[in-house]
This record gives sequence, structure tokens and C-alpha cells, in this order.
Amino acid sequence: MEEKLRDHIKKIVLLTDDELSYVLLHFSLAAYKKNEFLIQQGENVDNCYFVVSGLLKLVYNDKEGKQHIVSFAMEDWWESDFSAYFTQSKAKMSLQCIEDTMVYSLSLKNYQKLSAKLPKMEHFFLQKSNLGFIASQNRILSFLTSNAKERYEQLLKQYPLLFQRVSKTLLASYLGVSRETLSRFSS
Amino acid sequence: MEEKLRDHIKKIVLLTDDELSYVLLHFSLAAYKKNEFLIQQGENVDNCYFVVSGLLKLVYNDKEGKQHIVSFAMEDWWESDFSAYFTQSKAKMSLQCIEDTMVYSLSLKNYQKLSAKLPKMEHFFLQKSNLGFIASQNRILSFLTSNAKERYEQLLKQYPLLFQRVSKTLLASYLGVSRETLSRFSS
Repeated sequence: MEEKLRDHIKKIVLLTDDELSYVLLHFSLAAYKKNEFLIQQGENVDNCYFVVSGLLKLVYNDKEGKQHIVSFAMEDWWESDFSAYFTQSKAKMSLQCIEDTMVYSLSLKNYQKLSAKLPKMEHFFLQKSNLGFIASQNRILSFLTSNAKERYEQLLKQYPLLFQRVSKTLLASYLGVSRETLSRFSS
Repeated sequence: MEEKLRDHIKKIVLLTDDELSYVLLHFSLAAYKKNEFLIQQGENVDNCYFVVSGLLKLVYNDKEGKQHIVSFAMEDWWESDFSAYFTQSKAKMSLQCIEDTMVYSLSLKNYQKLSAKLPKMEHFFLQKSNLGFIASQNRILSFLTSNAKERYEQLLKQYPLLFQRVSKTLLASYLGVSRETLSRFSS
């Protein structure tokens, strides 16, 4: 398991073995079953998560009980309700397992500690944050410029494997269309 | 002018006078007239910008010549086509002045240099990036969960001053609705 996180960090910064051991002390490994929640809407957000294996959805449930998927998270992705995590406010979204999932969790206190103690890790977090920011700027752009069918095709092209692991109902909720509309795209 | 940038950085990290002087060496101040472009869609993105005064729009022009506003940027905001900036690829969007505007520009080379030489600045950039990431995650959420009228009301509540400075046509383009639809909200 440690190799996954080490290899992931190594793509951005090279840590010595001692530094890596120190970093790993601040993460905890946890296993969740399909349908289990890591974050519950309305509750505290203690951690952000690095996905070792499995698949999750970040969802917002509206007052009518309708589910909106903000993002999926699979192997090598970081996920949380980052707004609630960084500002230590209540979660606006839930993070729930679509498959049995294994994650490394990192508390905000440990995120801040690693950033402060190890410049390499602050650099790593900056790169990840910039990549996350870029991805979300691109998603905003796709909402403004593409219709649901085009967003469907972009997703299929970018993450072909996701389509084999996610139900049509979840895909529709991610794209912001009904299940029936989605069926027309994929037929 | 320097005070604006100094005060902005000071909200997150305290720099000594020497550090601040060093930081300022890496920024250049520039003035642009209303309608001038800082970034042109399809061209290189040399800088990200800290807005000292004025107002800008980050826009995507589609094949039909329709303009989509991804974000506005006013005093104390940072703006760029961050995807193109960080990956040094061609701009997918344009950054254009809505008013006469004064900015501090920062090249990627200087961004990287400041991050590497001054841990305080890497920390500052990490905080800004996380805030930008949070804001865009919130905007994605609002696209999924709110209709155009609700997004209009959220914007009015969050940035009341923007409404006095931006035309109805630009607001409509930001919200992703027609000028006629917008008139119904505000009447």
C-alpha cells in the first residue's frame, strides 16, 4: 500500500527514505465497504483522502432528495469536500464508496504540519492543488460551452474505464441529465 | 501600488521588508485600457495577474462567436487561464479588460522561482490555490444544483458591487442565459 502513495508523491517530488517514513506517519490507511460514507453532508470533515484502490462519488443531495454528483474519485485521486476541509466547516457534500475502497486519510492538522516541516511536501501539495484548480476550471468551462451530450463524450474520451465501473444512473447524475436523456446519448 | 500587493500577501504570510523587496522584483506593474486583452485565446499565456484596480473578464469564444464568461476578476483577485499558464500551452480563454485596469503580472518562471527560494511564498501560493480550488468546486456545485435564477441571486448576494460595474449582457453570459432571461430575473 505504501508504494502507491510513495510512487504518487515521487511523480512530483523526490523524498529520501527517511522523509517518506516521516510523511507516512501522518497518513492513516483505512478500508471502506461499498456504500459506506467517508464524509456525510452536514457533518465535520476531518480528512482529505488519497484513493489507493476502489471508487467513490462526491455528491450533493438537494432538498428534494435528488442526488447531484460533483465528481468521481478513483485510484491515485485525492478527494474531499475541500471547502469544508480547509475552512473546517460542515460538509456541503457527501463522499461515498461506489466500490469497496481503500484510502490514505490526512487530517488538516497533518496537512499543515507536513507543509510547514517539509518544503518538498508543501511543493507537492501546491502542484496537486494547482492541478485540481485547473481541472475544475475546465469543468466550469465545459458547463458553459458544452451540452450534456458533448460532456458525455468528453468524459468517455477522458476516462473510458470509468464507464465500465459506474452505473448509467450515476453517470446521468454527474452530467446533470435524466437517465432517459443519457440513454439517448449512448444508444 | 506596492502597498496593495504587500497588504494582500500580508493577509496570509508576514514578509520582512527585505523579503518583500525581493518578491516585488519578480512582479511587473502594467496598465491596460478598457477592452484591451491581457490573454488572447489561442496564444501563449506568459503571466498570471494580480488585479490592483479595475475589472476583467475571463472568456471563452465558441465556434459560433458566442462569448461565455468563465469568471470576472476585480481588485485583489488573481486571474489567468491557469491551465495554459501552468502547463505552458495555448490559451483556451481570453482575459480582457471591462474597465481601465492595473495589474501586477507574474511569469511562471518567477512563480516557480519565488516558490523555490522563499518557503513563505510557496505557502502563500498554496493558500491562494486552495482558495481558488474551493471557489471553483462551489461554482461546479452551483451549476449542478441551482437554476440560472438562483445563480443570479447567489452572485448578487456575494458580489453586490459587481452588478453596478458589469453590463446585463456580460452578466447573462456569466450565468449562461440569454439577455432576455436575465431581464426577467432582475425585474
